[in-house]
Amino acid sequence: MPELRKDPIVGRWVIIATDRARRPTDFIRERVQIRGSGFCPFCPGNESKTPPEILAYRADGSQPNKPGWTLRVVPNKFPALGIEGTLNRQGEGLYDKMNGIGAHEVIIETPQHNTTMAALPAAQIESVLWAYRDRILDLKKDTRFKYMLIFKNFGEAAGASLEHTHSQLIALPVVPKRVQEEVNGARDYYTLKERCLFCDVIRQEFSSGVRLVAENEKFFSLCPFAPRFPFELWIIPKEHRSSFEESSRGEFQYLAMLLKDMLGRLEAVLDHPAYNYIIHTSPVPDGLNDYYHWHLEIMPKLTNLAGFEWGTGFYINPTPPEEAAKFLREAAPPPGAIVR
Amino acid sequence: MPELRKDPIVGRWVIIATDRARRPTDFIRERVQIRGSGFCPFCPGNESKTPPEILAYRADGSQPNKPGWTLRVVPNKFPALGIEGTLNRQGEGLYDKMNGIGAHEVIIETPQHNTTMAALPAAQIESVLWAYRDRILDLKKDTRFKYMLIFKNFGEAAGASLEHTHSQLIALPVVPKRVQEEVNGARDYYTLKERCLFCDVIRQEFSSGVRLVAENEKFFSLCPFAPRFPFELWIIPKEHRSSFEESSRGEFQYLAMLLKDMLGRLEAVLDHPAYNYIIHTSPVPDGLNDYYHWHLEIMPKLTNLAGFEWGTGFYINPTPPEEAAKFLREAAPPPGAIVR
Repeated sequence: MPELRKDPIVGRWVIIATDRARRPTDFIRERVQIRGSGFCPFCPGNESKTPPEILAYRADGSQPNKPGWTLRVVPNKFPALGIEGTLNRQGEGLYDKMNGIGAHEVIIETPQHNTTMAALPAAQIESVLWAYRDRILDLKKDTRFKYMLIFKNFGEAAGASLEHTHSQLIALPVVPKRVQEEVNGARDYYTLKERCLFCDVIRQEFSSGVRLVAENEKFFSLCPFAPRFPFELWIIPKEHRSSFEESSRGEFQYLAMLLKDMLGRLEAVLDHPAYNYIIHTSPVPDGLNDYYHWHLEIMPKLTNLAGFEWGTGFYINPTPPEEAAKFLREAAPPPGAIVR
Repeated sequence: MPELRKDPIVGRWVIIATDRARRPTDFIRERVQIRGSGFCPFCPGNESKTPPEILAYRADGSQPNKPGWTLRVVPNKFPALGIEGTLNRQGEGLYDKMNGIGAHEVIIETPQHNTTMAALPAAQIESVLWAYRDRILDLKKDTRFKYMLIFKNFGEAAGASLEHTHSQLIALPVVPKRVQEEVNGARDYYTLKERCLFCDVIRQEFSSGVRLVAENEKFFSLCPFAPRFPFELWIIPKEHRSSFEESSRGEFQYLAMLLKDMLGRLEAVLDHPAYNYIIHTSPVPDGLNDYYHWHLEIMPKLTNLAGFEWGTGFYINPTPPEEAAKFLREAAPPPGAIVR
């Protein structure tokens, strides 16, 4: 008998196939390979092919928009939103619209083309996290923006159009519905219990242990109770922290280690899957608060969504998170890259 | 400058790329082809390879679970939910779960393998609609079920695992979150205005005309104001109807004609895309009502979702619905099938 489980934060039901759980090898798809062929606008020497850089971490003495960087942030050349102008809300009969104001930036995580985030040294991943923070803090000065979304698309199946390892930041003029639902769910729980829902989840997960994957001093990773997707994986700070950008460099060091470890294990268990990761953090207007707890969600792209999911927002997940966690716990992260 | 548009029903924002709209030929993907090779459990003669039929439309004198049918409904051999048992809601610490009670049926739309729904005669599509209605009315007698979802996955990219043309029905023990949001949005509007939101949308769309695609006596089709996907297309009854299953045979005749026309135009404009369609209808507990208006949503599968959509529930749509509607209005539906 399958099991229906409810996400405790947003109240979404998912169907977990407990009978005939799908194992990693049951998901047939192409492994992501870095081909390294063709022109790449993110490679050193091609700096003029991107818009001018907003931020770069550079060896002393190297010039802006020239080689010598170890990490580079540039505006997206084909932005989903435009940075110039004032917000202009309008009606059109019973409809509502506004002009698409926002920021859309690309974080180029390393000058090396033939690598993946999982294969980067932990110290380099830490500087990627630091770049996220630097950009969020800078964009928060712009009062038009209400939410900062950091995400990564890895592999074509997960929506990546360039293979050189990168992540993206989009600053939005509204708090998106799905984020607001999460914040509302957490706030309602706090109002009722005067405890952070995520802190309660952490306590319960540590006490049962079945969905835990790994931990270090500051962070731990788990497969959530009601995951939408097989092998969905969260990384969450052990102590209450409402906002990603309030982390210290010490915390980022631990996060970088655990993120590298988790991406490596996913590569090992699922044979180099495409994936998305997303940082879920408090909206700008919520500031520092006691009810929301930031975390990073990793979703390997193993299955296609179909009519059922679109029609209901109700997901069918063929792999129970307890099984997924077990596979991930038992996996040794691969030592090297998937460089070709 | 891109434009942000808000869905008037659920309040979801989408980003419409008004500057560099993508035309049908910009979406590169494989066309769906019916290969007809290999064993098919839905073909006549293989009736014993599915669970015993629940409903069939048959020529006089033919036996159940033998050839002679023109349409057949069978339980899904690998159901997402199990039909036996009583609902058992339980807690697990702070989590909520229940056993996965529900019905999961497959509507085999024709005995012919080498065809698609777009190529079926309108009269056969009408009998598919009639089968949906028959099954919903029967399942509504089971008080465990709160929502009946009818959907179709066409093409592998849209989640279809068998190519013989079919649709699915899932009866659910809870009203799914996304459906409830739509109903709540419509009810709130009704409370405020004492008018059906969808009826107001229809009036506005007829007066502007820019997003209309086609119409007949009882139904019309349009590209919605804030579509999540390029070429998303709705078919909606002109008069207020809260529930799909309350339609008459006369209405289904007009719906079948328009559905055939729309699927044909999508095939012509988008070169045989994979797609999902979903019937959005009132939940069982809402019964006949004045606030919800059933409709059918067709979503061609042209793009991959990426981190941005997952993180926000906020969609980026590269084709404005006004452009999509224009392409579809100008398309002549193809006369025949894509039979190979």
